[in-house]
Amino acid sequence: MGYSLQEIANNVGGRIVGDTANAPDISGVASLTSAGPHDLIFIEDEKLLSTAIGSKAAAIIAPENIAGQVPTTSKLILLSPQPKLTFARAANFITEQRLQDQQLGVHPTAVVHQNAKLGLGASIGPHSVVHNRAEIGARTRIASGVTIGVGVVIGKECVINANVTIYSGSTIHDRVIVHAGAVLGSDGFGYVRDKTTGAYEKFPQIGRLEIHDDVEIGANATIDRGALDATVIGRGTKLDNLVHIGHNVQIGENVVVAAQSGISGSSVIEDAAIIGGQVGIGDHVTIGAGVILGAKCGVPTGKIVRGKGEVYWGVPARPIKQHLKELAALSRLAKSKAEEK
Amino acid sequence: MGYSLQEIANNVGGRIVGDTANAPDISGVASLTSAGPHDLIFIEDEKLLSTAIGSKAAAIIAPENIAGQVPTTSKLILLSPQPKLTFARAANFITEQRLQDQQLGVHPTAVVHQNAKLGLGASIGPHSVVHNRAEIGARTRIASGVTIGVGVVIGKECVINANVTIYSGSTIHDRVIVHAGAVLGSDGFGYVRDKTTGAYEKFPQIGRLEIHDDVEIGANATIDRGALDATVIGRGTKLDNLVHIGHNVQIGENVVVAAQSGISGSSVIEDAAIIGGQVGIGDHVTIGAGVILGAKCGVPTGKIVRGKGEVYWGVPARPIKQHLKELAALSRLAKSKAEEK
Amino acid sequence: MGYSLQEIANNVGGRIVGDTANAPDISGVASLTSAGPHDLIFIEDEKLLSTAIGSKAAAIIAPENIAGQVPTTSKLILLSPQPKLTFARAANFITEQRLQDQQLGVHPTAVVHQNAKLGLGASIGPHSVVHNRAEIGARTRIASGVTIGVGVVIGKECVINANVTIYSGSTIHDRVIVHAGAVLGSDGFGYVRDKTTGAYEKFPQIGRLEIHDDVEIGANATIDRGALDATVIGRGTKLDNLVHIGHNVQIGENVVVAAQSGISGSSVIEDAAIIGGQVGIGDHVTIGAGVILGAKCGVPTGKIVRGKGEVYWGVPARPIKQHLKELAALSRLAKSKAEEK
Repeated sequence: MGYSLQEIANNVGGRIVGDTANAPDISGVASLTSAGPHDLIFIEDEKLLSTAIGSKAAAIIAPENIAGQVPTTSKLILLSPQPKLTFARAANFITEQRLQDQQLGVHPTAVVHQNAKLGLGASIGPHSVVHNRAEIGARTRIASGVTIGVGVVIGKECVINANVTIYSGSTIHDRVIVHAGAVLGSDGFGYVRDKTTGAYEKFPQIGRLEIHDDVEIGANATIDRGALDATVIGRGTKLDNLVHIGHNVQIGENVVVAAQSGISGSSVIEDAAIIGGQVGIGDHVTIGAGVILGAKCGVPTGKIVRGKGEVYWGVPARPIKQHLKELAALSRLAKSKAEEK
Repeated sequence: MGYSLQEIANNVGGRIVGDTANAPDISGVASLTSAGPHDLIFIEDEKLLSTAIGSKAAAIIAPENIAGQVPTTSKLILLSPQPKLTFARAANFITEQRLQDQQLGVHPTAVVHQNAKLGLGASIGPHSVVHNRAEIGARTRIASGVTIGVGVVIGKECVINANVTIYSGSTIHDRVIVHAGAVLGSDGFGYVRDKTTGAYEKFPQIGRLEIHDDVEIGANATIDRGALDATVIGRGTKLDNLVHIGHNVQIGENVVVAAQSGISGSSVIEDAAIIGGQVGIGDHVTIGAGVILGAKCGVPTGKIVRGKGEVYWGVPARPIKQHLKELAALSRLAKSKAEEK
Repeated sequence: MGYSLQEIANNVGGRIVGDTANAPDISGVASLTSAGPHDLIFIEDEKLLSTAIGSKAAAIIAPENIAGQVPTTSKLILLSPQPKLTFARAANFITEQRLQDQQLGVHPTAVVHQNAKLGLGASIGPHSVVHNRAEIGARTRIASGVTIGVGVVIGKECVINANVTIYSGSTIHDRVIVHAGAVLGSDGFGYVRDKTTGAYEKFPQIGRLEIHDDVEIGANATIDRGALDATVIGRGTKLDNLVHIGHNVQIGENVVVAAQSGISGSSVIEDAAIIGGQVGIGDHVTIGAGVILGAKCGVPTGKIVRGKGEVYWGVPARPIKQHLKELAALSRLAKSKAEEK
């Protein structure tokens, strides 16, 4: 079961070049090298056009500027100003249609509290648990082994993968994707040290977690609830696997955080910041809108880093040009010392 | 349902200032800005006193030295030598009382082996599994989706959150909190390389894991069992989310380890050490009592680091003053090189 | 129930020294200090021979070159050219035999789709879920709370520990061990940014994950499936806890990756590379066969690092000798600056 390129174009836009009369149905997407006869592929670089035409694919999404170069013998091409984006949307269209065939509903082994509310078309997988007063929005799919805490609210069309835990106090808006094993709304790392005994006692970690629309959260990532107030993840933000977000952190919209990065308590990450992998951000830091933090850099406690498109690197993080100069200077110094000997 | 400030003070100490006659009941704790009319708040800084009095809160915990400054129109104040600590204890008192209303017992979907032993008031959540010969102490609460391995012993008043896995060979003492997704007692990373084939073969990872009283373990943290002997986590130690503890590691009492730090096999961390986030500690390292390791620093294999209150930073970790001097010297060097050009 | 040293030697090789007539049965393995009267121990260093003979152990595995030094009063010794390896094999032999006593089969609470295929002697633990068309090989043991996605293929004699999630699109070959909480085949971190809105849209993450024979994967590790093609983990490779492997990564055979390291998308790690803890590898990197990456080092995007046995360290990673020279030069520079003042 597939779609014509025209059906796909109707959903994702673009202009078709070529004869749609006898074109094969499209039932999947693939890379240039692995495509089969019912797959859709894409190119961004016009140099790959002949390779793409020579592939086994059913059709190609390509940049508009190649329109004049398409040979008459070509397979079907969908021209787009942003071919990779159009390809992504086409893939989502095809996949989504396919998902509608999957088994839905509440699995008989799921434990759903009688006071929980399930929206129309919500599905709860085997051995998942939905606690008292939790609300699951329409068409949200919860996989197996998931625990949804007391009073948790989840919006519509979310996907919560297997073995995710969502603590009480969490609110998740629409179309949020949470990958397997992630933990949302866990207690933050907050203690008060008794001056007389030296022992750490637990400071209350009873605040909220709010995750806005279209966020995606990677496998085994952890996001702590606020201590007394809220941790907030803004609309469209994407967190990779094993990312850690501490209590009371405020993340803006369309932020990306690559794998294994950690953001300590009460820090603020403004819109559209880009945070590389294994970055560490101390507590009470501000990362300004559009700032780029290179992989493995570290931003010390309390620091404010600003500048749209500015790249920072190193530990402690500094402007990348400065850090590269320092690395070069150090390299020269070590060589000159070596030569002296 | 709430408590009078007097009831709270009876449990956590402190001296009340003000008229308790018509004071509102206290049913929660909050921050200064988010407090409602039945919330308890705290201040540490006397400058915040008038803000606190002007807030919506029912009562304030404040430092003793503000006693003389309290206006007669103030709401109730509880004076304490350690107001944040007293606030934490008050929060725990209120929360604990509330928990007693929660549903307890063994959920019908839990799989509890007939030879497992459950203490009085222990509860096992939906879809959790307690294997043969495991022992769960009195009033310990095990959430949903948890697996407790063969022969595991858990003490009293522990909280094991959802989707935690505890391997066979683990002993957990009293009042330990384990957050969702944590894995305790997994196999360490130990192999023997066959000199003839180059293949790695598994060295036995069959030792024990012992976790003492009042430890808290963060979400998705992992602690490996000993290879042949034991991994030990001392009383009162707190591990943040995504922390990794290798096989045979010995951690003392009241140690704190911030998120995403890792401690390699056979290292020793002595009492009251403070380890920042994303720190890496090689194998067979000793971190002396009270040592402070700055975020992202790295301690090489075999190294011994000592000095109560001494701060180390960098990779490899060195005294922070030395490291800051080096960073400053490098910055000057790069600038002078740049100026030469 | 135990084994004679002869039975063990029949399985793991080696030559026995001493009188086997009245020797105690061996039912376990232990370290020198913790051994009991039915334990097998090993030494690699001949200086430990008398300590080993004086221990409580039932028998000792020792290097061949100590053959001439064994006193007549010694307990049994098994001589081996690789004593630690022989010990590891003996431990596995004893443990494996013991496992055969464990309860097997499909637990009544497991949810196994009618179209899933289970090999002879495969076992599925409580509350695990095996989806449509999944195949589980002979004698593979799946613990509790595990989710096996639609169409996943798992080979024979694998061990999948509790709360593991394996996404659809994954193929796992034989004798693979996956520790608790690991997530295999999750979506990679791939988005296309819409130039007009600034929003990130999901690029399809629908490729495959292939894990070859004898791989071991640590607790809470995450391995993403390919975006359109495959992520591949080669035979005999060992990944420690909390390791992250991005989409389309190709890892060769007998690679070891220590805890909390991360490998970004499309990178290639060739055979027998050794990667320390908390290492970060950017995307499209090549790590050549046998290269050694020191703990916490970082390899930037696109970099090619080669040299069997060559050690790299630092961020960005450089030959360790160079990096150590730089560290030394910097230390001298800071001291000289300090002295100037």
